[in-house]
Amino acid sequence: MEFQLNALWVMIGAILVIFMQGGFIMLETGSTRMKNAGHVAGKTIFTIGLAAIIYWMIGWGIAYGPNGNLFIGLGDFFYNPYNSGDDLPNSVSFVFQFAFAAISLSIAWGGFAERGKLPAYLLFTIVFIALIYPMVAHWIWGDGFLAEDGAQDFAGSTVVHLTGAMAALAATILLKPRIGKFNKDGSANNIQGHNQVFTTLGVLILWVGWFGFNGASTLGVDDTAFFGYVAFTTLLATGAGAIVSLLTVWALSGKADIGTMLNGTLAGLVAITASCAFVDPWAAVVIGAIAGALVYASMRFFEKMKIDDPIYALSVHGAAGIWGTLANGLFATEELAVNQVGVGQAGLFYGGGWKQLWVQFESVVVCGIFAFVVSFVALLIIKALVGLRVTEEQEIMGLDLSEHGSYGYPEHMTNSGKTTGVNG
Amino acid sequence: MEFQLNALWVMIGAILVIFMQGGFIMLETGSTRMKNAGHVAGKTIFTIGLAAIIYWMIGWGIAYGPNGNLFIGLGDFFYNPYNSGDDLPNSVSFVFQFAFAAISLSIAWGGFAERGKLPAYLLFTIVFIALIYPMVAHWIWGDGFLAEDGAQDFAGSTVVHLTGAMAALAATILLKPRIGKFNKDGSANNIQGHNQVFTTLGVLILWVGWFGFNGASTLGVDDTAFFGYVAFTTLLATGAGAIVSLLTVWALSGKADIGTMLNGTLAGLVAITASCAFVDPWAAVVIGAIAGALVYASMRFFEKMKIDDPIYALSVHGAAGIWGTLANGLFATEELAVNQVGVGQAGLFYGGGWKQLWVQFESVVVCGIFAFVVSFVALLIIKALVGLRVTEEQEIMGLDLSEHGSYGYPEHMTNSGKTTGVNG
Amino acid sequence: MEFQLNALWVMIGAILVIFMQGGFIMLETGSTRMKNAGHVAGKTIFTIGLAAIIYWMIGWGIAYGPNGNLFIGLGDFFYNPYNSGDDLPNSVSFVFQFAFAAISLSIAWGGFAERGKLPAYLLFTIVFIALIYPMVAHWIWGDGFLAEDGAQDFAGSTVVHLTGAMAALAATILLKPRIGKFNKDGSANNIQGHNQVFTTLGVLILWVGWFGFNGASTLGVDDTAFFGYVAFTTLLATGAGAIVSLLTVWALSGKADIGTMLNGTLAGLVAITASCAFVDPWAAVVIGAIAGALVYASMRFFEKMKIDDPIYALSVHGAAGIWGTLANGLFATEELAVNQVGVGQAGLFYGGGWKQLWVQFESVVVCGIFAFVVSFVALLIIKALVGLRVTEEQEIMGLDLSEHGSYGYPEHMTNSGKTTGVNG
Repeated sequence: MEFQLNALWVMIGAILVIFMQGGFIMLETGSTRMKNAGHVAGKTIFTIGLAAIIYWMIGWGIAYGPNGNLFIGLGDFFYNPYNSGDDLPNSVSFVFQFAFAAISLSIAWGGFAERGKLPAYLLFTIVFIALIYPMVAHWIWGDGFLAEDGAQDFAGSTVVHLTGAMAALAATILLKPRIGKFNKDGSANNIQGHNQVFTTLGVLILWVGWFGFNGASTLGVDDTAFFGYVAFTTLLATGAGAIVSLLTVWALSGKADIGTMLNGTLAGLVAITASCAFVDPWAAVVIGAIAGALVYASMRFFEKMKIDDPIYALSVHGAAGIWGTLANGLFATEELAVNQVGVGQAGLFYGGGWKQLWVQFESVVVCGIFAFVVSFVALLIIKALVGLRVTEEQEIMGLDLSEHGSYGYPEHMTNSGKTTGVNG
Repeated sequence: MEFQLNALWVMIGAILVIFMQGGFIMLETGSTRMKNAGHVAGKTIFTIGLAAIIYWMIGWGIAYGPNGNLFIGLGDFFYNPYNSGDDLPNSVSFVFQFAFAAISLSIAWGGFAERGKLPAYLLFTIVFIALIYPMVAHWIWGDGFLAEDGAQDFAGSTVVHLTGAMAALAATILLKPRIGKFNKDGSANNIQGHNQVFTTLGVLILWVGWFGFNGASTLGVDDTAFFGYVAFTTLLATGAGAIVSLLTVWALSGKADIGTMLNGTLAGLVAITASCAFVDPWAAVVIGAIAGALVYASMRFFEKMKIDDPIYALSVHGAAGIWGTLANGLFATEELAVNQVGVGQAGLFYGGGWKQLWVQFESVVVCGIFAFVVSFVALLIIKALVGLRVTEEQEIMGLDLSEHGSYGYPEHMTNSGKTTGVNG
Repeated sequence: MEFQLNALWVMIGAILVIFMQGGFIMLETGSTRMKNAGHVAGKTIFTIGLAAIIYWMIGWGIAYGPNGNLFIGLGDFFYNPYNSGDDLPNSVSFVFQFAFAAISLSIAWGGFAERGKLPAYLLFTIVFIALIYPMVAHWIWGDGFLAEDGAQDFAGSTVVHLTGAMAALAATILLKPRIGKFNKDGSANNIQGHNQVFTTLGVLILWVGWFGFNGASTLGVDDTAFFGYVAFTTLLATGAGAIVSLLTVWALSGKADIGTMLNGTLAGLVAITASCAFVDPWAAVVIGAIAGALVYASMRFFEKMKIDDPIYALSVHGAAGIWGTLANGLFATEELAVNQVGVGQAGLFYGGGWKQLWVQFESVVVCGIFAFVVSFVALLIIKALVGLRVTEEQEIMGLDLSEHGSYGYPEHMTNSGKTTGVNG
């Protein structure tokens, strides 16, 4: 019966994580301009569709194939999970793990936004889902060398969020900033997204889905239903991220900016993702609160560095992902890390010394560099093959017309490719 | 295994109830104007974020703390639910109960819509979540005096909906009507919301989430899986509310108004919330149908009273919440109320006499007055401290600009603060 | 405990299927014009509300009533499912089966879009939910003659999708094409939907809900948690449908059309619905891929036939529904069809000969013709009683004004009934 209960909870978790793609659709579309809306929304569907096929063919086998080593998994390509597994049905494991891979991919698209060419999306999906993501997953969640070292990344602050964010960083560096983002004197303009309602609904959907993302990363329903505790710390950290980011931006810029608050909410979620199963309630609040403040600083930092981060993937998933992973090295408790979960040891503030913090640091550095470098090289090759960025004329016209041949909002747009509002 | 099954179902219920906030985001935003859209949507996120922190610090302890009395709970502040509970894990109970508190809060915001100041949202969240909601929850669902009396409010027609609606009433009285709502001769204008698609999606999301709201209020999965029956009566009442409200407004006003129909659907849900576990199928249909007709009358009544109710919280959650609570006093059956659930006794039409109807009436009056008076006093204090309402100029400009510094829909708005349609 | 686990999973499935109505709301609204948006969205709510009441009164009894024969069920009208069932609580069965009926109804509305009169929606809901859908459900899923023959339609490619699509076909033939769809020379115009973001979110919600639609059609959680395998094949087929439809439309029309890709994604889902429990992984990919290509051909076919199919119900739910049902006759395996599920036998490619393919063909023809003919006759009667189509003037003005008295988007529309963009 335990087997079936586990299957049920993880299946529900998988469904919730796939639903998070609806959050990305709304978040990304709301954060970009009307002329690109159909493209930004629609590309999520066909890239996760392609990802499902590639993960079945290759990705699963690289992450969890039985014939691998500490560095890479091998086997189970074109996977048939009909036969039952041990604690979980293989089929449920596959759908759950795929869902995480697809989230990481959708994070990466943040770096391509509003100027990437359509063929680049298809080719990068293949590289990312066949190789980049599965290798990091293998290292920390499979039988890889970081798992051996006791790396604590419960639901993927590093595996999912940092990996995706580093791919986004490689992409945005190679693609260069959007037209109009930076002025000749180096100052930045605020290219506002067109629909904060979409962005807000997106964040709420992500929050909801995250109860599956973190909660079902218990991979089952043990005797104490520990997943409830994971959901509880997730809730606290998110609340702290939301309110601290709002107060931070309000205090420091004089403007209670909705976008920053939404990013702070997500940053709380991203940060607690690594640590939700390892920390006390008060630490969850602190982790979320720091993430909420950090996201504000990070958004400013990348703008100062003249790196254009349209959907704030680098700040929300990168900076907060690093913070969340490191936080375990500070806050992980003996009771939870060792006795409950059995991964690694207690953090600095709980008598574990510097050991766990070093392992967490190692995870971040190794995975971050790997994801960045391989993404960068892959994108250079894709650039040589099919190009990465649309032409200036196409970018001004918008990707709905240039890449797909019709507006996403035909009744909102004028024939001259502008929205009907004078601010458009 | 029972313990784990219960944990699973109530966790899923909690996730569904938190998802209902997505319903409120779309419902409220769709029912208000474009110039306020980013504010209306975004405030849901940071108020529920703050609510999570406050409920953890104080609210849970007031509602369910172990050292209380018939009037108030005490203890378990800054709650750590790691250790298991009896029938349910404490952590799952916390997240589930928090989700209900946050719904009540989002109902209250209906009274603040399109003119409330940002600091007032933050301060009222604290009062409502630390004190007002938890006390009512303690009285009926904790070890309070109304529970002792056998009050039947299965999933919160009174605890959640009426409490929120009475706070909304206090707010809308103190804030006064929106500019342009009432003419000098006392007649009312219809300030239409800007997006019925949002409103409709919002209602559908609320309906979906309500299967967790009512269904998981069984707090587990007993031998007969009684939660299925609760979902069944919920479905019937909602269907009746939808179709009766449509026919009512069509017959009486000549206009098959979508907004009224959507309110009738929600009214069916609100009304059956108290009674879903206590009544026969035919009674569920009657309860929903009456709620659907009542919401139409109530909307007209509040307009006549010159009370501006922008999101119709007073009619949907107030009037229907009262009706649903009282309905138990009429329709509760011996088999369900006494044998199945074990709360109170049968209603007037099922041989229980006037007793249960009186208890239901007592609940409504006591909780309604309490929520109204404490909200009113709290808002008076908040008004003195930071003010409740934006200036006339700010209200005309819209709260997106005045409270947050940028439009929610920058491409839809002209520089003069109008939408681009001539009706705007 | 098995009983409770089954109840839990099927209840969750029912909630997911009801959530799919949110997918239809966004898909249909996004695929039609702004002047009809409130109507298109809102009618989903009151028609499923009415459907709930009618299914309770009549439909359930026609489908599953105990006193029927091979042709029709009888009994259990005004159903009270309080008493437990055997493998599943009766209440949970009712809500789950209702959810499927309501999906089929929402598919049918595709044929009415942008010109149907409001009373026709109400009357056709009654006929469809009381009679048409329940009879087909009885034949294949109840104790009907197609079930006796071993028809394989696991989650309803025929029962739900083809039935709905044939009703849509009858409607669109009787209603005739929308004004402006076809030119005098017979060529077709592309009447674009107004919001691809809505359409995309709709497809994602449908995809998510489909894990309940197909997954919970196991009607429980057996020892091997077979529902996981069903979810797995569903995922693969959908991915294949998405990517193949994108590549097909891109290669053949030169335009990577988002709408066609979204239809291909849905076509993959519709096709695998019949076969998800019967086929190997590679076959799931083939079934989805062919559905993705087929939908492109079908969309062109119906346009050539001068049949106006505004939401593409005929291609997505009709053509792909037929393909998916027939596919079992080719790909069903002995291991899954006979040993695992125990319905029918293996298909042509797995040594079963032509037998199963013939049974599948029989299902499609019998159910398709029945649904078409009864819908056609019912609509002729409704036409005589209250009319089917709004006037030319009303259609140009939009159904929001003509049927409901106010715009769904009041701030986006000009007084002359046009949108503010010059393309509107």
